[in-house]
Amino acid sequence: MKEIIKKQEQVFQGDFLKVDRVLVELPNGREGIRDIVRHPGAVAVLAINDEDEILLEYQYRTALDEVILEIPAGKVDPAEDRTAAAHRELEEETGFSARSMEYLGDVALAAGYSDEKISLYLARGLSEGQEHRDEDEFLEWEFVPRSQVLEWIRTNQIQDSKTICAMFYLSLREF
Amino acid sequence: MKEIIKKQEQVFQGDFLKVDRVLVELPNGREGIRDIVRHPGAVAVLAINDEDEILLEYQYRTALDEVILEIPAGKVDPAEDRTAAAHRELEEETGFSARSMEYLGDVALAAGYSDEKISLYLARGLSEGQEHRDEDEFLEWEFVPRSQVLEWIRTNQIQDSKTICAMFYLSLREF
Repeated sequence: MKEIIKKQEQVFQGDFLKVDRVLVELPNGREGIRDIVRHPGAVAVLAINDEDEILLEYQYRTALDEVILEIPAGKVDPAEDRTAAAHRELEEETGFSARSMEYLGDVALAAGYSDEKISLYLARGLSEGQEHRDEDEFLEWEFVPRSQVLEWIRTNQIQDSKTICAMFYLSLREF
Repeated sequence: MKEIIKKQEQVFQGDFLKVDRVLVELPNGREGIRDIVRHPGAVAVLAINDEDEILLEYQYRTALDEVILEIPAGKVDPAEDRTAAAHRELEEETGFSARSMEYLGDVALAAGYSDEKISLYLARGLSEGQEHRDEDEFLEWEFVPRSQVLEWIRTNQIQDSKTICAMFYLSLREF
């Protein structure tokens, strides 16, 4: 079933995304071409307070041309530890620091064409501080009761994959 | 919070992926650049049989260079109805036709850089037929008890976002 990667060539270089064109030998011996989006990797943080409320962000996403609801997330810096990145992203985007940052699991976001795996974390023991976002980052956040977040997933008002996966990990963990 | 798209230019054209470089006016009046992956759209099918088993595929994914476990999925053809695409992909990849194909919801897979929304469906009333895959598609499938699928998500052996989201939609629906 496995393909053998024979050759790859970078065909696009963006700000943080790259695209490689990969020549593979298929299981039947023939050749195929795959375009692969290369991503530096990311973390996302499900932060929950002592009142069982989830920290959600409203963020405009250019790719979708809409404001969506999602948990804090961001790219991992080169050589940065992922748990450290989770603390950093939570603090940059919302100002909150977390006493505990528990690893929930990795998710392959778009296995068909992207190498991105996002590492999901559960943050507890939150203390409010000062947010300090990237220059081109604009968002608002609020705490939403967990039952409301589940309802918004059920009714498809939350459509963001990392947010849905993190909420499921939380549910499975406590089941 | 919203950005205004001022200009966009296609900077990469692949087999089915495109990349657009988008110039936006940020909420603070300054300008920013976003690279956006354009995708034709996709469907994924959570097929469940009368024994409460889920149809899972083992498929090699070049982007991850690994064989992963996932539900049947594929790109929507131009002008194709999404429910029809769900029936078609299930049948092409596994040979099964479904008596009912229920829409579960849409998921934005990688909101940070991709416009892809995948529509998730729940297939029931399965009858086995003849699979007929794309020329460059190699996969194996099996039915896995639902409790086992949940355990594989909990232990992170299943990492595919659409599969995890679809399983959560199913759980929330029955809760």
